[in-house]
Amino acid sequence: MDFCQNRAEWQRNPQKLFSSGRFNRRSDKKKQMHILTSWLPIPADSDFSLYNLPYGVFHTGDGRARAGIAIGDHIVDLAAAAGSGLFGKRRFFKKIFEQNTLNDFIALGKPLTGRVRKKVQDWLTRSSAPANAESLLVNRLTAQMLLPVHIGNYTDFYSSIEHATNVGKMFRPDNPLLPNWRWIPVGYHGRASSIVASGTPVRRPWGQILPPGQETPVFAPSRQLDFELEMAFVIGKNSVLGEPVPTEKADEYIFGLVLFNDWSARDIQRWEYVPLGPFLGKNFASSVSPWIVPLEALRPFRVKSPKQNPAPLPYLQTRGAQNYDIALEVALSTGEKTKQTIVSRSNTKYLYWSMAQQLAHHTINGCNVCVGDLMASGTISGPEAGTYGSMLELSRGGKEPLTLNDGSSRSFLENGDRVIMRARAEKNGVRVGFGEVDGVILPEQVR
Amino acid sequence: MDFCQNRAEWQRNPQKLFSSGRFNRRSDKKKQMHILTSWLPIPADSDFSLYNLPYGVFHTGDGRARAGIAIGDHIVDLAAAAGSGLFGKRRFFKKIFEQNTLNDFIALGKPLTGRVRKKVQDWLTRSSAPANAESLLVNRLTAQMLLPVHIGNYTDFYSSIEHATNVGKMFRPDNPLLPNWRWIPVGYHGRASSIVASGTPVRRPWGQILPPGQETPVFAPSRQLDFELEMAFVIGKNSVLGEPVPTEKADEYIFGLVLFNDWSARDIQRWEYVPLGPFLGKNFASSVSPWIVPLEALRPFRVKSPKQNPAPLPYLQTRGAQNYDIALEVALSTGEKTKQTIVSRSNTKYLYWSMAQQLAHHTINGCNVCVGDLMASGTISGPEAGTYGSMLELSRGGKEPLTLNDGSSRSFLENGDRVIMRARAEKNGVRVGFGEVDGVILPEQVR
Repeated sequence: MDFCQNRAEWQRNPQKLFSSGRFNRRSDKKKQMHILTSWLPIPADSDFSLYNLPYGVFHTGDGRARAGIAIGDHIVDLAAAAGSGLFGKRRFFKKIFEQNTLNDFIALGKPLTGRVRKKVQDWLTRSSAPANAESLLVNRLTAQMLLPVHIGNYTDFYSSIEHATNVGKMFRPDNPLLPNWRWIPVGYHGRASSIVASGTPVRRPWGQILPPGQETPVFAPSRQLDFELEMAFVIGKNSVLGEPVPTEKADEYIFGLVLFNDWSARDIQRWEYVPLGPFLGKNFASSVSPWIVPLEALRPFRVKSPKQNPAPLPYLQTRGAQNYDIALEVALSTGEKTKQTIVSRSNTKYLYWSMAQQLAHHTINGCNVCVGDLMASGTISGPEAGTYGSMLELSRGGKEPLTLNDGSSRSFLENGDRVIMRARAEKNGVRVGFGEVDGVILPEQVR
Repeated sequence: MDFCQNRAEWQRNPQKLFSSGRFNRRSDKKKQMHILTSWLPIPADSDFSLYNLPYGVFHTGDGRARAGIAIGDHIVDLAAAAGSGLFGKRRFFKKIFEQNTLNDFIALGKPLTGRVRKKVQDWLTRSSAPANAESLLVNRLTAQMLLPVHIGNYTDFYSSIEHATNVGKMFRPDNPLLPNWRWIPVGYHGRASSIVASGTPVRRPWGQILPPGQETPVFAPSRQLDFELEMAFVIGKNSVLGEPVPTEKADEYIFGLVLFNDWSARDIQRWEYVPLGPFLGKNFASSVSPWIVPLEALRPFRVKSPKQNPAPLPYLQTRGAQNYDIALEVALSTGEKTKQTIVSRSNTKYLYWSMAQQLAHHTINGCNVCVGDLMASGTISGPEAGTYGSMLELSRGGKEPLTLNDGSSRSFLENGDRVIMRARAEKNGVRVGFGEVDGVILPEQVR
């Protein structure tokens, strides 16, 4: 794996890897606008339409991890597709796809990864089922999904003005939105090692907690366990230490997006977070959705960002639509057999700071980024109560517990609770979704 | 490379890898106490004595990176030693040592890495020069040193009470040592990608700075560039997500130590750091010394920690000597030809929170650690002015500039300034040093 190293020889002339066809990104873009149809039955309400084609890593119970592209209820097995010669140089692509991370694939660069995507889209939209259809397709509903990338570095931003204001009111009643917030896409480094794939249970953490009104902390399991509804982007290109990535080049460096649940223990966080920021209140686990939706699939859903006041400093200024209209929801259930309650409906379009601004800020001091790095948005809350992206905000710090569909009430998460986040963009009959990021709370360890 | 994955088959029976000799760690420990002599001339004042034997990664101009052990003015080329059969299974060890990081070596586990160390020590202390001496030794003074490990995750603590108090006074005059400080080994996640090897120049970062008395930030190169004198430990064993590492098991998980310069831009940091902690004020670069001193080499220098008041919570309590008596110094020169000035003399023994406490705290919520992770102490300041570990403290926030040996004065670092940190432990004629971590400030990029 390439740790921000120099690029290989072949990367200067990547076309040579492919068996046929020339690069022509403009005509590809035009074709995207046509109505695509496939010989493969794809449920009409599927997140994984022909316009999406997100990348993931899976196995089918044999432990043999490999890369795939989701399509409807199936996965195109990219290792098998490579073996069948779909992409040209068989050995090269098989080696790339027979791995348990997508890092080496992503590091090929967008001209190549886009070409793979195009080959798969062409294969799926042939006029009739290809002879190798059965050997290249896997049942998505029974496949096991793994973490799609090795995440070298993880950064969490704080880019929703509604969230920053809501939380600020609780942590600092006199001073909710700090003076730097409208100038800086505030962010901090998180822990990469404890990021897990959707479906991994999360154990309730122990930690130091200061009981209200007391001066001495106690050591106890967190009683204010929370989710945070976030969108995150995966870095697709190494930058050079010392050289910023300007906003207008952000798209070159952003490979795709995943849905992100940044589990938080509010009581631990409250006691520890001054002066160096959240640490153990966050780093016990974060969950990502298994399919990376490539940036190009989201192009039709670009929208303008909220107006920024004051105008950002020049290095943070952008042109055109930099935000995305992606509907988000959080479902909560209190056990396997209970009904889900949708506790939040939000949208990435609420974000005050865009990904381009986040990346430009992150690198403006020369900090480098690497393929596979993950940068999360921070909790995405909207303006109204039902759009808040955390229990902390939804229950107003626990003062107004939510009533769920099964009659129970919740201020924070209880053991056995299951949180499922979903995200989907839709426009003119084109649907691009993220699937789910899902996690169940396990009881704390006995001590 | 192993990203916190399960251990391989051979790891259950590691003795089989070696050609001869049995494991006997107790007798190894006894031998350490004897006076060791070598057929190889080792300068009496060398940091790299027969008692040290630190690990690094080097090349000799051919770009062929490989692992080595420093001894006096030489390096034992571990790849060559493996090829000569010194460690038994030649192909296995050659593959381990012919890499540009030590991660796979460290992941072998302490019983094996200690055995390699012992084999090298035995080879160096033979009664006369072995026939293969010339082919296994490299001139250390002309070798190029690389970053010794791939750092998956980097955490920075804040464990010097003198530093926390000194800085707290400047950032928060009313409230220098926050209420949580004596309960928590406060720490935060830093950026792993921008950690560089000693000798890599550091470019002055640009960033947002709030001029004193103003309400609108400016975009400018940092004018308060600083060093931070720190010691860091390298994780030697993966822990399991969800399972804490108790203080009494810390030594199993700490492979060794490096000297660490956590470059800081105080003006950028001051404006950005609330509420989520330092970010761009720190992540433009940090520098590590190239040789990892193994924990066993530092055993003779263990000392008790400062008395902790209040007594820490049970999960942070330790027994025995948990701190280290390692003398530290920071030299500053204003150019290639000018005299160095020792601007600080400190010692790791001042640290209030020990490494065992840092690691136990970091993992108490279930956060996992991985081989190659780096955990730094935070700036190590002592009680008197000449022992402070940053310019911020030495110049009292710029109010009392230091006068250097060449007649110039400094509040913070100027372009062309060179900072060299050194660390050395010494007792009963046994000397174990870290060499240097060295960095020159380059002017900011022109914009």
